[in-house]
Amino acid sequence: MTPDDIETAAARIAPHVRRTPVIELAPGEFGFDFSVCLKLEFMQHAGSFKARGAFNRMLSAALPPQGVIAASGGNHGLAVAYAARQLGVPAEIFVPEISAPVKIRRLRELSATVHVTGRNYAEAWQACEARQRETGALVVHAYDQPEVVAGQGTAAREFEQQCPGLDAVVVAVGGGGLIGGVAAWLAGRTPVVGVEPVTSRALHAALAAGTPVDVEVSGIAADSLGARRVGSVMFPIARRYVERVVLVDDEAIAQARRVLWRELRIVAEPGGAAAFASLLCGAWRPAPGQRVGVLVCGANCDPGGVDAPA
Amino acid sequence: MTPDDIETAAARIAPHVRRTPVIELAPGEFGFDFSVCLKLEFMQHAGSFKARGAFNRMLSAALPPQGVIAASGGNHGLAVAYAARQLGVPAEIFVPEISAPVKIRRLRELSATVHVTGRNYAEAWQACEARQRETGALVVHAYDQPEVVAGQGTAAREFEQQCPGLDAVVVAVGGGGLIGGVAAWLAGRTPVVGVEPVTSRALHAALAAGTPVDVEVSGIAADSLGARRVGSVMFPIARRYVERVVLVDDEAIAQARRVLWRELRIVAEPGGAAAFASLLCGAWRPAPGQRVGVLVCGANCDPGGVDAPA
Repeated sequence: MTPDDIETAAARIAPHVRRTPVIELAPGEFGFDFSVCLKLEFMQHAGSFKARGAFNRMLSAALPPQGVIAASGGNHGLAVAYAARQLGVPAEIFVPEISAPVKIRRLRELSATVHVTGRNYAEAWQACEARQRETGALVVHAYDQPEVVAGQGTAAREFEQQCPGLDAVVVAVGGGGLIGGVAAWLAGRTPVVGVEPVTSRALHAALAAGTPVDVEVSGIAADSLGARRVGSVMFPIARRYVERVVLVDDEAIAQARRVLWRELRIVAEPGGAAAFASLLCGAWRPAPGQRVGVLVCGANCDPGGVDAPA
Repeated sequence: MTPDDIETAAARIAPHVRRTPVIELAPGEFGFDFSVCLKLEFMQHAGSFKARGAFNRMLSAALPPQGVIAASGGNHGLAVAYAARQLGVPAEIFVPEISAPVKIRRLRELSATVHVTGRNYAEAWQACEARQRETGALVVHAYDQPEVVAGQGTAAREFEQQCPGLDAVVVAVGGGGLIGGVAAWLAGRTPVVGVEPVTSRALHAALAAGTPVDVEVSGIAADSLGARRVGSVMFPIARRYVERVVLVDDEAIAQARRVLWRELRIVAEPGGAAAFASLLCGAWRPAPGQRVGVLVCGANCDPGGVDAPA
């Protein structure tokens, strides 16, 4: 995975994805003694960054007439369903039972065939694999294919064009497709900080073990960040280029969602607010005067829940 | 009111307001045969463009120790309360009974003294005027002071920097402070299209009568757009520079809110969605191939209501 792969992905998906905007917070907002640029990637098609990887995977392959197949806590499934509809092929999506009802409803609105199965992402993935062997549809993995990781990396390329010279970029981690792509693009030029929920720490565990290992997952962000293990594509990139990984608890995530709504009128889903939560709760503190970028990466949620207590 | 006044306002308020982002829709999205740039002005401090005018008015005057006083359907009051808190003076706000409860709660959170009085904006304004004669606080009018109109015009200046060469800019109209400032900045260089709810058409009535006149106001956007008459500051500007004013009904506004949420994960209040509604329902149709700018100008609402039917 090189920056060239991401450059290629960016050109390939450009007609299909949005250039999502950024907003700069004023110095001192939220009591920060550093500056923050938020990239509003939740405005991407299908409500998360996942459209980038889905399009890059699908446009890199010969799409069979039976279309595409994927397993997903929701956001990836939505992105695959959206991309399939745009590219005119069918999509079959396996979602675990913990998925947000709003995501399942949207999948159906996007004309995907939806199977709700398994207690978590890993079990949904097993069902997806079994079905794929029957149909021969193209698998679009939620995070562990090079084309998917390269596609997600285009978010960092765009962010760097919009906000050059950031001192760090903060990214939520589930299976690690996004942070893998971001770190591969920045390649040590800008430090990358990963943020995991305390209840879903696959990258922490992998870095400690020296290889991706299984973890238990739960918590309010589990439907988007609850991958049982990080991908094999992202892991060597993370080991090389991710400067640190910090943890946030559910209350910090819920508080970040409330603050994003109350102060910026941004609705983010729990996983989409996790990176910002790390700054707000102090899990990670940039040095005074630094200017850091934060990906607000998903908003597939009930908007009414944004102002609710944890 | 000249572009110089707006240039001056922009320099004056720059330390206090956000440069709100823009997002470009792809050609063909929503079936449009024209391009659309949305300016996400609802991410402004206090959730609407009103912070611009409030800061410009307050920074243009000698602020008395008794602070500021205003009447408002909500957004202006929030902006005045926010600006007063930032500038360290007290604020007293008169809101009509139709105001959204969420706005009244937020006013109190911003430490303003709130008076809920009158059936509509005009009645709240009368109570505000009476109180001001007692206290001598600085009046910040919701739309009919030159400093307020010039402040709102800075949104157009910023939008033009972000998206040069737009073929038109579409703006919702209540009392007309925003469209007055926008039209004064663009000064005929770019056509300005105003959008009023069918149930709250003060600018239509004023243009027909040749002078601001009273109208009845109602409908889902009345808490932000329900001014009984347009301002005397904006009227000559509108007559000279506003190319046309179109009408949207409540269903078109509700549909625009749903579409902004479902396709872009934007929560807009009814008044904030009215300009976009005019494109979506066809009340105004740009010529094929044109590129138009739309101000999404407020989001002081219950986020859970965004996906509800009209």
